[in-house]
Amino acid sequence: MIKAGVIGATGYAGAKLVSLLCSHQEVKIAFLGSRSYAGEPFSHVYPAMLGVCDQILREDDIDAAASECDVLFLSLPAGLSAVQVTTGMLKKTVVIDLGADFRLHDGSCYEKWYKKKAPVSALLSQAVYGLPELHRGAIKNASLIANPGCYTTTSILALSPVMGLVETDSIIIDALSGVSGAGRGEKIASLYCECDESVKAYGVASHRHTPEIEQELSFVAAHPVMVQFTPHLVPMKCGILATCTATLKNGVTEEQIGKAYRTMYGKEPFVRLYPSADAVESRFFTATNTLGVGWTVDRRTNRIIVVGALDNLYKGAAGQAVENMNIRFGFEETEALAGFSL
Amino acid sequence: MIKAGVIGATGYAGAKLVSLLCSHQEVKIAFLGSRSYAGEPFSHVYPAMLGVCDQILREDDIDAAASECDVLFLSLPAGLSAVQVTTGMLKKTVVIDLGADFRLHDGSCYEKWYKKKAPVSALLSQAVYGLPELHRGAIKNASLIANPGCYTTTSILALSPVMGLVETDSIIIDALSGVSGAGRGEKIASLYCECDESVKAYGVASHRHTPEIEQELSFVAAHPVMVQFTPHLVPMKCGILATCTATLKNGVTEEQIGKAYRTMYGKEPFVRLYPSADAVESRFFTATNTLGVGWTVDRRTNRIIVVGALDNLYKGAAGQAVENMNIRFGFEETEALAGFSL
Amino acid sequence: MIKAGVIGATGYAGAKLVSLLCSHQEVKIAFLGSRSYAGEPFSHVYPAMLGVCDQILREDDIDAAASECDVLFLSLPAGLSAVQVTTGMLKKTVVIDLGADFRLHDGSCYEKWYKKKAPVSALLSQAVYGLPELHRGAIKNASLIANPGCYTTTSILALSPVMGLVETDSIIIDALSGVSGAGRGEKIASLYCECDESVKAYGVASHRHTPEIEQELSFVAAHPVMVQFTPHLVPMKCGILATCTATLKNGVTEEQIGKAYRTMYGKEPFVRLYPSADAVESRFFTATNTLGVGWTVDRRTNRIIVVGALDNLYKGAAGQAVENMNIRFGFEETEALAGFSL
Amino acid sequence: MIKAGVIGATGYAGAKLVSLLCSHQEVKIAFLGSRSYAGEPFSHVYPAMLGVCDQILREDDIDAAASECDVLFLSLPAGLSAVQVTTGMLKKTVVIDLGADFRLHDGSCYEKWYKKKAPVSALLSQAVYGLPELHRGAIKNASLIANPGCYTTTSILALSPVMGLVETDSIIIDALSGVSGAGRGEKIASLYCECDESVKAYGVASHRHTPEIEQELSFVAAHPVMVQFTPHLVPMKCGILATCTATLKNGVTEEQIGKAYRTMYGKEPFVRLYPSADAVESRFFTATNTLGVGWTVDRRTNRIIVVGALDNLYKGAAGQAVENMNIRFGFEETEALAGFSL
Repeated sequence: MIKAGVIGATGYAGAKLVSLLCSHQEVKIAFLGSRSYAGEPFSHVYPAMLGVCDQILREDDIDAAASECDVLFLSLPAGLSAVQVTTGMLKKTVVIDLGADFRLHDGSCYEKWYKKKAPVSALLSQAVYGLPELHRGAIKNASLIANPGCYTTTSILALSPVMGLVETDSIIIDALSGVSGAGRGEKIASLYCECDESVKAYGVASHRHTPEIEQELSFVAAHPVMVQFTPHLVPMKCGILATCTATLKNGVTEEQIGKAYRTMYGKEPFVRLYPSADAVESRFFTATNTLGVGWTVDRRTNRIIVVGALDNLYKGAAGQAVENMNIRFGFEETEALAGFSL
Repeated sequence: MIKAGVIGATGYAGAKLVSLLCSHQEVKIAFLGSRSYAGEPFSHVYPAMLGVCDQILREDDIDAAASECDVLFLSLPAGLSAVQVTTGMLKKTVVIDLGADFRLHDGSCYEKWYKKKAPVSALLSQAVYGLPELHRGAIKNASLIANPGCYTTTSILALSPVMGLVETDSIIIDALSGVSGAGRGEKIASLYCECDESVKAYGVASHRHTPEIEQELSFVAAHPVMVQFTPHLVPMKCGILATCTATLKNGVTEEQIGKAYRTMYGKEPFVRLYPSADAVESRFFTATNTLGVGWTVDRRTNRIIVVGALDNLYKGAAGQAVENMNIRFGFEETEALAGFSL
Repeated sequence: MIKAGVIGATGYAGAKLVSLLCSHQEVKIAFLGSRSYAGEPFSHVYPAMLGVCDQILREDDIDAAASECDVLFLSLPAGLSAVQVTTGMLKKTVVIDLGADFRLHDGSCYEKWYKKKAPVSALLSQAVYGLPELHRGAIKNASLIANPGCYTTTSILALSPVMGLVETDSIIIDALSGVSGAGRGEKIASLYCECDESVKAYGVASHRHTPEIEQELSFVAAHPVMVQFTPHLVPMKCGILATCTATLKNGVTEEQIGKAYRTMYGKEPFVRLYPSADAVESRFFTATNTLGVGWTVDRRTNRIIVVGALDNLYKGAAGQAVENMNIRFGFEETEALAGFSL
Repeated sequence: MIKAGVIGATGYAGAKLVSLLCSHQEVKIAFLGSRSYAGEPFSHVYPAMLGVCDQILREDDIDAAASECDVLFLSLPAGLSAVQVTTGMLKKTVVIDLGADFRLHDGSCYEKWYKKKAPVSALLSQAVYGLPELHRGAIKNASLIANPGCYTTTSILALSPVMGLVETDSIIIDALSGVSGAGRGEKIASLYCECDESVKAYGVASHRHTPEIEQELSFVAAHPVMVQFTPHLVPMKCGILATCTATLKNGVTEEQIGKAYRTMYGKEPFVRLYPSADAVESRFFTATNTLGVGWTVDRRTNRIIVVGALDNLYKGAAGQAVENMNIRFGFEETEALAGFSL
């Protein structure tokens, strides 16, 4: 039994994390921090949890939390983790950061895309990119885990197996996200009447998940990769679906492709292969930690279309954070994450 | 005042057509045909029209309708117009077909994508592709107008101005559609509980609007163009948004691009230019005949991302059909189509 | 041609009003006021109106607006009209207030339900309750028109014809509203993720539309009437549906009921009768100024169930405000309001 | 470990049952019957269950299933259970019927509301109404359990504690349901485009859940009770919310009411009390077996407004069916039902 803390416990990702931890057999919640609701019970903010988690929310005090907890999850706006996490803190607790501050190894890249000061290099060099399918070994020993973004997890896992089979300069990713990805902030753009019955692209040519996708796909390809990433907002609460299109290298067969996916994901607990790109619907993964992937080859154009989908609050955020904790602390990897949808 | 008929008046596109014709100053509805509801008043099937259109629906008899009407709209499943329209009929009435049968000039291409027998060549050669922004002149004199598809209109109009400025073999179109595009058929896939809170790609590498997009973009480019087209279903009633990505030719400037759009659409009544790709939201065009277009250049990747959006039942079907009628009969082009949304 | 102004032009009701005025043949928009967006074009806030209404928004200065306009629409939070409208202003312009401040004739009732100071009695006595079906004559000569609330219009019009036929102390109104009724404020409760896939009752036993319903139903019944009114929020953008249940007086027949509705609404341009309570769906009235009403008698329980429905931004707010202007200025009552839905 | 069968396994309630049984520690699924999909794996029909339940669907053969299973769930259209269940079958297996055939003790009442022949009285007299909060003792020994309807569970549990405190002839229930309540049938009324952005009442004065509510509330009140029940369809996938209004008996205090609810539900695992009628939102119970109840007293009108809410596929159908099985077989009552939502 370990003690866990959540800083930013009342945002959508933070609250989902709390709910997952509540059903985790090996975890006791020791600290719930919230800037906006300190002093109130968690279930006042999320009445769905009445009687399940009535714990009192405390101020977002990372230092206090680090002292009280074996693992500390941070779910904060960009830039806040960078200035509050210290190397000293990492000697007391394992930090799993759901934000972006420690995801990019290259501080200057972070500063360019985020327009904020990067964390100190001592921290950046300790941080492990928390995508278990690529970095499970390193996660086991990490004291600072940078939990990937939702678009990022979908895109990287959809494309990784075929990075050696496609022209890597031809990758176009058009992704669709439910509205919870925008967080619980009081923004006009997130109002029901602004999102309902409409779709739009946003962050075109500038979305911050782009360098993160490129970093990891470059790692897989073993050479620098640049992608075109265009996210879209669609009228649903949760879910991500990424449609990835790329030109196949000459002579690549469908057998090679199928084998690449089965080899990489055959034993993965949270990746499920579907028989084609249009067999994957985002609802299949709602409230589960599973990523679904399917692909179709267009022989007419010699391109592959890969579709990946997940629940942005599970495998795209809180679920993957719990998965990282499970790996780090030697728990069953699927503990608290075994649910499936219908 | 002309007499109009609608065959297939109780599908979503047909019914929208009826409602538009009801507010048209120059048109009297003389014939409403419906296979499923013959004998009932239109307003029994669409009670929103109670007291507005209580006309009795008749059997889907194209010959009878052609004799009684100056203009006959067909809104039928693929293949039915091909076998029922005759050259003789076109001497009596102007046919505006909302289906796909007369859209592809090349009969063998139709047979390949639709797996149905193509119309006779005498008809194919008479048919005019009813996209006013490209073929207004020919529409004025046409007796058989093939009204374009919804994805098609969006994609062609989004890309046409820049066909000379991009590498035409690099075009990727990922498009999102509301559920009404699937029609009013009693299909499990169209049930509320199957579409709500989910997105999916469908028809990957095989959607029938692909050759139609290619035909018209090839016409504009003056050389054969092949595109990658991937449609998606999103949980909303109506609306299409197409995100079109292409590599720019060397040296193309943003000024050139802006000028190309303004030159082509500056005087078009139903195309509206937006300042960027992410300024276009599909809801802006709900219940209007307007197509919105915006574009963003990504200098990092040297690509252009163009977003087009429209209401699939208006500019993507019934509205454009009325627009074609207006052009063909010399009415004000915006008659019955002047509404705007909010 | 008259000059119109809108104060609070960028809220949902105000903006709908602007869009209706844009298509009105007899009106020129002379003043658009907005606290939040003064200095910006209206179409920056509502890009759906790009090229249709690019007028610059000005500060919410009621005095200036009153001097420049023949009619001034106020769409403001409760309490603001009460302190800004003056009797002097009403000599210069006709004020149509979409808010609640002048709706209740009894100032003390206003203060009890709204916890704000009531307007001065000189104003209250001039104000006409702008429900044309009940007060058309008075509206023709009014200088201050209190435009009714959305729940109110639905409930009053649904029940008025049968007020003499039911036990008036038995009336239960359970009403459902789309989210736009909550306005465009940046509230967590109006976020997409808080409203989607959920329903709730709110304002139980305390909703401010209650006394307004009671005032008008008492007027119709000619004796004091108290109702139970419970509103609910449902996941849709617009629309109100009110289910009104009441015990029939002994011996009342279905013929009497039908006759009562036909007598009262037979010539009304914006009330449409449906054959039963379950024949009325809120979508039938989307983007129209029509109220639909249907009723069913339950002989087993001797009760009548009346269902009324409308679009809260049209007949429930902006549409009715335009209707009131049309009546007051002698325009065709349906001008700019003739649209129908499907 | 017992063997379970599901007849009608591919409808929405049947499929949810399958998914719950898949995570049940004490159950092995031995038989899945489906009229429409016999021969296919369950996961072909529900690809969200790929790799979780790939069992082959068999013909809907109740006799075969009864011989192979310790418990047999029936999820069939009205009338089919009545003619297929036999007293002999009940000696071999425990039958839990999710349909309506065995819910009404009075066969003539069934025939009046359902227009079908009632089951033989030997079966009716064996059937136990499977609402644990009222009949837990009888369920423990039942061989035929009639699992209650979704509206019914909500309404009965919301009102039961106060049946002695209200005028029982004054009860009005207006209830809202998500679309999954209508089942997976290919009906136009269940299409996305017919349900989205709209609400309607249906089955006014005639809905078949009415006699079921009356039977159980009469049992609780110990005298015949007649209610007014009006269901509504709202645009969401799942969830029921019932707003129940009744006049309080003279002198009833809020303390008495609160005590009545706490006494009845204080130890119930699946009923959760909320502090007021408007504190209950249907989403709080999505994908859980919990019913939430809150109430508000209106001293002005001397009425109580009670709101109950649940997930129609869990506590309103499949979840309650599993709960009944757990009780009947002596398993932990919350086994496979312990999940909570957020």
